[in-house]
Amino acid sequence: MSSFACQRLSRTFRDNRRTATLVLLCTAVSGGGYFAYGQLAPPEVVTDRKKVVVLGTGWAATSFMKNLNSPKYEVQVVSPRNYFAFTPLLPSVTCGTVEARSIVEPVRNIFRKKKVDVQFSEAECFKIDAENKKVYCQSNANNSLDGKEEFVVDYDYLIIGVGAQVNTFNTPGVVENCHFLKEVEDAQKIRRTVIDCFERANLPEVSEEEKKRILHFAIVGGGPTGVEFAASLHDFVNEDLVHLYPGIKDLVKITLLEAGNHLLSMFDKRITAFAEDKFQRDGIDVKTGSMVVKVDEKEISTKELNNGGKITSIPYGMAVWSTGIGTRPFIKDFMSQIGQASRRALATDEWLRVEGCNNVYALGDCATINQRKVMEDIGAIFKKAEKGNSGTLTVKEFQAVMNDICERYPQVELYLKNKQMRNIADLLKEAKGDVQKESIELNIEELKTALSNVDSQMKFLPATAQVASQQGTYLAKCFNRMEKCEANPEGPLRFRGEGRHRFKPFRYKHLGQFAPLGGEQTAAQLPGDWVSIGHSSQWLWYSVYASKQVSWRTRALVVSDWARRFIFGRDSSRI
Amino acid sequence: MSSFACQRLSRTFRDNRRTATLVLLCTAVSGGGYFAYGQLAPPEVVTDRKKVVVLGTGWAATSFMKNLNSPKYEVQVVSPRNYFAFTPLLPSVTCGTVEARSIVEPVRNIFRKKKVDVQFSEAECFKIDAENKKVYCQSNANNSLDGKEEFVVDYDYLIIGVGAQVNTFNTPGVVENCHFLKEVEDAQKIRRTVIDCFERANLPEVSEEEKKRILHFAIVGGGPTGVEFAASLHDFVNEDLVHLYPGIKDLVKITLLEAGNHLLSMFDKRITAFAEDKFQRDGIDVKTGSMVVKVDEKEISTKELNNGGKITSIPYGMAVWSTGIGTRPFIKDFMSQIGQASRRALATDEWLRVEGCNNVYALGDCATINQRKVMEDIGAIFKKAEKGNSGTLTVKEFQAVMNDICERYPQVELYLKNKQMRNIADLLKEAKGDVQKESIELNIEELKTALSNVDSQMKFLPATAQVASQQGTYLAKCFNRMEKCEANPEGPLRFRGEGRHRFKPFRYKHLGQFAPLGGEQTAAQLPGDWVSIGHSSQWLWYSVYASKQVSWRTRALVVSDWARRFIFGRDSSRI
Repeated sequence: MSSFACQRLSRTFRDNRRTATLVLLCTAVSGGGYFAYGQLAPPEVVTDRKKVVVLGTGWAATSFMKNLNSPKYEVQVVSPRNYFAFTPLLPSVTCGTVEARSIVEPVRNIFRKKKVDVQFSEAECFKIDAENKKVYCQSNANNSLDGKEEFVVDYDYLIIGVGAQVNTFNTPGVVENCHFLKEVEDAQKIRRTVIDCFERANLPEVSEEEKKRILHFAIVGGGPTGVEFAASLHDFVNEDLVHLYPGIKDLVKITLLEAGNHLLSMFDKRITAFAEDKFQRDGIDVKTGSMVVKVDEKEISTKELNNGGKITSIPYGMAVWSTGIGTRPFIKDFMSQIGQASRRALATDEWLRVEGCNNVYALGDCATINQRKVMEDIGAIFKKAEKGNSGTLTVKEFQAVMNDICERYPQVELYLKNKQMRNIADLLKEAKGDVQKESIELNIEELKTALSNVDSQMKFLPATAQVASQQGTYLAKCFNRMEKCEANPEGPLRFRGEGRHRFKPFRYKHLGQFAPLGGEQTAAQLPGDWVSIGHSSQWLWYSVYASKQVSWRTRALVVSDWARRFIFGRDSSRI
Repeated sequence: MSSFACQRLSRTFRDNRRTATLVLLCTAVSGGGYFAYGQLAPPEVVTDRKKVVVLGTGWAATSFMKNLNSPKYEVQVVSPRNYFAFTPLLPSVTCGTVEARSIVEPVRNIFRKKKVDVQFSEAECFKIDAENKKVYCQSNANNSLDGKEEFVVDYDYLIIGVGAQVNTFNTPGVVENCHFLKEVEDAQKIRRTVIDCFERANLPEVSEEEKKRILHFAIVGGGPTGVEFAASLHDFVNEDLVHLYPGIKDLVKITLLEAGNHLLSMFDKRITAFAEDKFQRDGIDVKTGSMVVKVDEKEISTKELNNGGKITSIPYGMAVWSTGIGTRPFIKDFMSQIGQASRRALATDEWLRVEGCNNVYALGDCATINQRKVMEDIGAIFKKAEKGNSGTLTVKEFQAVMNDICERYPQVELYLKNKQMRNIADLLKEAKGDVQKESIELNIEELKTALSNVDSQMKFLPATAQVASQQGTYLAKCFNRMEKCEANPEGPLRFRGEGRHRFKPFRYKHLGQFAPLGGEQTAAQLPGDWVSIGHSSQWLWYSVYASKQVSWRTRALVVSDWARRFIFGRDSSRI
């Protein structure tokens, strides 16, 4: 084949990626693709388009953008990162199991062939003016060009999906001395520093004690990220670095500090126990009940909560802080503007609308759904349900609004499920004692008693990629059907108002969670509390993570990175 | 296959890389491998080993290390980079055609399975004390750990292969405002900055004029690096970025500034002409006779040498400086210590020994071979060649030392070749005029006349990877045979001393040079001034560069990067 033909072929490939890459790659990857490039089509000419401004290019914002397909919007995305990063693989990047570039996809690639008119600006929002529907932005601070560009963007709808930042809980020295693991750059920096530690400890004329300090890796936070990083680092050291640094391999120590009593407290107890056992066998020192109170240049001070609050200091070479998330400063400003100053994250209603302003939506880690309590609306619910001002509610009347109640207040359904009740009638029966179901009639006080414990079932959603991604998809679908649902509302009854809500409220569907524990073993907690631990879950992990990639390009890269690691091990060049 | 079996298989793979990777990859790569991992063998116990200290991990030092296989040495390598970088692919890294990690190999991987005892320290040498045979080192400045470790290393032999640094010719503003292209980090930074420029130019409220400035890429230096970078950038913009930044694609401009009258002046004229034509067709603005005199934050000032020295200023967004090499500061210090203060690089003799000190060798870009002039030794040559103090030299006498002269003074052979003479007798005949060859007899003055023009043929070797690599191999082979050659010298006659030189002097063998010009076209200048330009040379380029990789790992990665670029294009994420 001549070079010229090749060149043309390459162009053909890239212009018709959908089919070409499918043909090329579908044999290489086990999982299926959730995302295929659409064909290029000229944007439909729509007059009077609404301007949607999206802040962020993380899971929430990207899944919103991917699923938005109504040409009735003109979209501007503003984010300091011009790429989407597949963050669940960040711990793999820290040790070179996967390359940083394999988990990122330029957002322009994702938007490029959509029917929706999308503009992207690589900039940071620093102020939201919800009153005048404006956001203030400035060019990326990490940009290597001089000067700052500032600009203002108007919106009709604002979608905030900027994620969260690291929460140091104001612990002194953390910002100066610890590594974080939130961004791709963080992972790259950790990777370089691990190698730095090994190289430094390997220099002549470094004392044994100093070598030990330098090779002590301290990880703060026993959540999924901290645990996965500890496991990755252990594998990196034991599978690759020991061969290259034989003289110092026995001095390496990994310590995992967790303030609580167990690792992975959000997982099933079996997983926690397995992880703790495995880490002990691996020689990873797990210190539970150990709260970090200060980080010096070379020492971490901890308060031993199970040991009378004794303060101890341990020398370290590298510290990684992976505990908790905090609010970004401009979101904090915005929150005080709209009367949410006391909150931890942007409060939204069940439709992801930010409380206290209009046409602003927030999703992902920067937001939290402020689930409405049933007890607050109990009067309205009673009034809506009862027919003919009788002052009492029959089971039949109540059953007519039962679905709406369950839809509007998901805690009701959860409560029923936990109490193993079949329907609301059982709930009412419980309040009334042992009478015939059909004949139950309650007044408002009795209804209150019946529903009094329901609100205890309210749950905050975890700050995970899965939640953010589902919220993005949900919101995009709402936007796609905005006009249709305006005309024919499909949500539950408005108990405090007239008619129905436009959309069904957001409902999170938990698909399970992984905790990779190193040595090709992964714990998986799947829906229905089904727990699987070991090598088989590792393969499940591989296939789920391969299939969830945002593009065929990253899928091919991630899979080939795994293959490369399998054949050649991980690279230890300090770049 | 169970995960556990897989894990074991992976280990087997990595422990027996030689066979396993050969099987896996030999079908993937067209070129053959020059380097295969040796089997692990315990180092032979040799008492009284000599300590060899190697500075650097570039082409010269690495090829020395790779070829050194005598267990009589104990080697310590000191370099701020713990990896070897395949520098000819750096321009490809700037635009993401190849990933940075694909062209680097940890030096420990290269040394690990050698029979020679090699230690590596990631540190920078800052002082050489040749008198006491010590080098002073400090831990890597770019290291992310605090504090500096300093240490001293003793040596019996010192090999200096630290390369060169960028030469700004003291042009104001270059260090502050220009990018360089010597290290892997430089290439990564250029890649980020190109994307920064596109993102910045794409922001709202940036004026058309400012957009044009930001998207003006100025490249200073029309040598192979500058030309290849200009070509890569042009391809990146036209094959990938135009699709992602459709609004600003027409504002992009690439300018190549060269002080001389032509691009690629070290290449054949046909290549120069082709390159200049191609760049003109591509819309790359080539400005020859344009010497950069100052670089401001946003403007480059040039002196138009062909236009009466007029000073003009051009606004730019990103400037890359790729012209000339300079000496590293600690090498400068060392040079003044040994009386070479006035020189441009470390002067060595033909055996790569640094002049003015003992047991110190220098090779690669930091050194230059100070070829001995024939005219300086003419008396000694005459004396050595003539038998019986006759005062004249017969052709027969001269022919007896002819081979030694050619070996010791390569310029003689070059001169003969250029004059199309068959042997030295022809040369002598030229000096004597038209007489019978056999009867020629010369006195010393006549010999001087005969050889008077020979020294004009002396050549400096170019500062290329090829030269450095050949020097490293040559020196390693000398070291391997040190004892043997001490006993049985194999070099030419010592004209000024007794006996023979231990080794043959270093002789560079030019294997040809490539100049990639973009659009899958490459110019190749092969030995014998054979010139090939176009797509076929591009494929030659691919196969030579694949085959020259230092390990099967990098070979597999580079080839898969090319494949990835072919299928998916280049990544434009800003990381």
